[in-house]
Amino acid sequence: MLHNFNSGPSILPQVVLQQAAEAVINYNNSGLSLLELGHRTNAFQEILNEAKDAVKKLMEMNDEYEVLFLHGGATTQFMQVPMNLLDTQATAAYCDNGIWGNKAYKEAKHFGQVAVVSDGSTDKYHSIHKNFTVPSDAAYLHITSNNTVEGTQWHSYPTTSIPLIADMSSDIFSRPTAFNQCDLIYAGAQKNMGAAGVNLVVVKKDLLGKISRPIPTIMNYQKHIEAGSLMNTPPVFAVYVSMLTLRWILQEGGLEEMGRRNAAKSSLLYNTIESLPIYTAPVAKEDRSQMNAVFFLNDAALEEPFLALCKQEGMIGVKGYRTVGGVRVSMYNAMPLESVKVFCELMQFFAQQKG
Amino acid sequence: MLHNFNSGPSILPQVVLQQAAEAVINYNNSGLSLLELGHRTNAFQEILNEAKDAVKKLMEMNDEYEVLFLHGGATTQFMQVPMNLLDTQATAAYCDNGIWGNKAYKEAKHFGQVAVVSDGSTDKYHSIHKNFTVPSDAAYLHITSNNTVEGTQWHSYPTTSIPLIADMSSDIFSRPTAFNQCDLIYAGAQKNMGAAGVNLVVVKKDLLGKISRPIPTIMNYQKHIEAGSLMNTPPVFAVYVSMLTLRWILQEGGLEEMGRRNAAKSSLLYNTIESLPIYTAPVAKEDRSQMNAVFFLNDAALEEPFLALCKQEGMIGVKGYRTVGGVRVSMYNAMPLESVKVFCELMQFFAQQKG
Repeated sequence: MLHNFNSGPSILPQVVLQQAAEAVINYNNSGLSLLELGHRTNAFQEILNEAKDAVKKLMEMNDEYEVLFLHGGATTQFMQVPMNLLDTQATAAYCDNGIWGNKAYKEAKHFGQVAVVSDGSTDKYHSIHKNFTVPSDAAYLHITSNNTVEGTQWHSYPTTSIPLIADMSSDIFSRPTAFNQCDLIYAGAQKNMGAAGVNLVVVKKDLLGKISRPIPTIMNYQKHIEAGSLMNTPPVFAVYVSMLTLRWILQEGGLEEMGRRNAAKSSLLYNTIESLPIYTAPVAKEDRSQMNAVFFLNDAALEEPFLALCKQEGMIGVKGYRTVGGVRVSMYNAMPLESVKVFCELMQFFAQQKG
Repeated sequence: MLHNFNSGPSILPQVVLQQAAEAVINYNNSGLSLLELGHRTNAFQEILNEAKDAVKKLMEMNDEYEVLFLHGGATTQFMQVPMNLLDTQATAAYCDNGIWGNKAYKEAKHFGQVAVVSDGSTDKYHSIHKNFTVPSDAAYLHITSNNTVEGTQWHSYPTTSIPLIADMSSDIFSRPTAFNQCDLIYAGAQKNMGAAGVNLVVVKKDLLGKISRPIPTIMNYQKHIEAGSLMNTPPVFAVYVSMLTLRWILQEGGLEEMGRRNAAKSSLLYNTIESLPIYTAPVAKEDRSQMNAVFFLNDAALEEPFLALCKQEGMIGVKGYRTVGGVRVSMYNAMPLESVKVFCELMQFFAQQKG
């Protein structure tokens, strides 16, 4: 029995995997594989429509917003956001709360001016810096809603008079969220929303068409809206897996239920860390991520045997990110509470042995 | 029984679909789905290595070239090629031999100067214009090796003293090809090489690093080479399907065998068109595509009943592209000769009925 704590690509619901595999052989009894299906067919249009509708329903978004499924991952959006929204002479505000926000603002510098309004590196990214000032004439404020690597999460979004843009790659649809506080949301699919190879972008339409620099067609949100996410051949299979995953979230009870489950899993894990003195969670309590819990063994020499025990017991993907070290446990929507229980039992067993 | 003549996404080998479906449930008996597998695991590295090695072997490319698998499709490359290779003041030469080459040169204009050296629209794209002059100081010459929509194909590439760049999306690996005449080759995977959502780019390394404009990281070929196609989470599933398809090509006998099969299929089809006076193939004989055959019914009123008969007999995807009309039959590598035989019998049957 394996327990998949991978940080992404990561665990997906079994029913999604089953249906995706069936579609690769014979899509919906069409006699064709999903991979052989034209993207301008009614069959694919239905898949795309269901995926878009599910996003709007889960986000409770009105028609001021448009839902796009685009090629690539969040790293593509690091470029595409400023390419569409940041004029050469204008300034964009970025929160640097971790490795991904850091990469995001560096890409924005290719297109305009950047003001890094909060710098989490001053305390090793162990908290979300929430006290900062945003230039009132900035084109937008960019945040990373959950920091996969550092294990921090925005539990409520900053209030600002300028457009708010959120990279939600690693906590989208994990709980009820103030989506409508944001003007643009993006997320690579390969954590809570499907397989790698597709990007979700939800954008408020009045944000677009305001910059003077010409935008290459394939990067232009406005052109993608006009083409209904079908400007070129989309990543058909990845869009389908996202649709199945979104359908699963709705069937399981939506964001309320996801939030209940994710709170239960992360509470159990953080309580276990707190209760056992050989482990330490470095992140400020109020900023801890429900998706990715980071902790250390106080005696660094115990890290290797701990990770070896995890491997032996079928706990996959728990080694901390290379720049952070320690242990990282990712508990996305599809992760059952049972797997976190088994992991916590292993932590207790190890603590008893070595404590 | 269906016969899948889709122009892309299109028919794939049954063994590839079977193995891809199995991997979605349980990759290589790992106990995990391929979709749940981290992209920095040995398992994925092996997939990527096998795919790259297969490309180098099929292309007979030496180490001056690098093989990349990137997000997106050929339309992404319309932007990425000039972004990497065309300085603002420099000129790139483009052959406009069809809808895709036309789109390609328009994107290049976002980055530098463009010289359209051949304009196929003057004879409705019914031939490949091969007599043209390329400015000797142009940064590169861009061609589309096969025109999916118009049904033309370069049967030998232009000789030029400047770097040659080829969009091979719709005929890559269909026969022995002078790949080493090109300095950069790209192809969306969803025709002869797998599923939608991944791009193959093969680039001669000494072509890179020569422009002065900074390149956004995710679009920078040089950075992708340094990161070994793992700059960000790649489209794991689509890369895997490409690897399986490339493995299948090698197992079936490589490009010699693909070329033999594709010549047999396209000869049968074009000979059938020529032998029946109710049909006309508009493309110049010497430029006809082995992948996509375009023809018309001389009596336009017969087009609708012909397409209706095709549909009734399970012939999928044969309606001509909306800008061209008529009939288009796509016969990629995975298409069996048997399907083309059945289609030709239908053409004969229809001609007898209506002739």
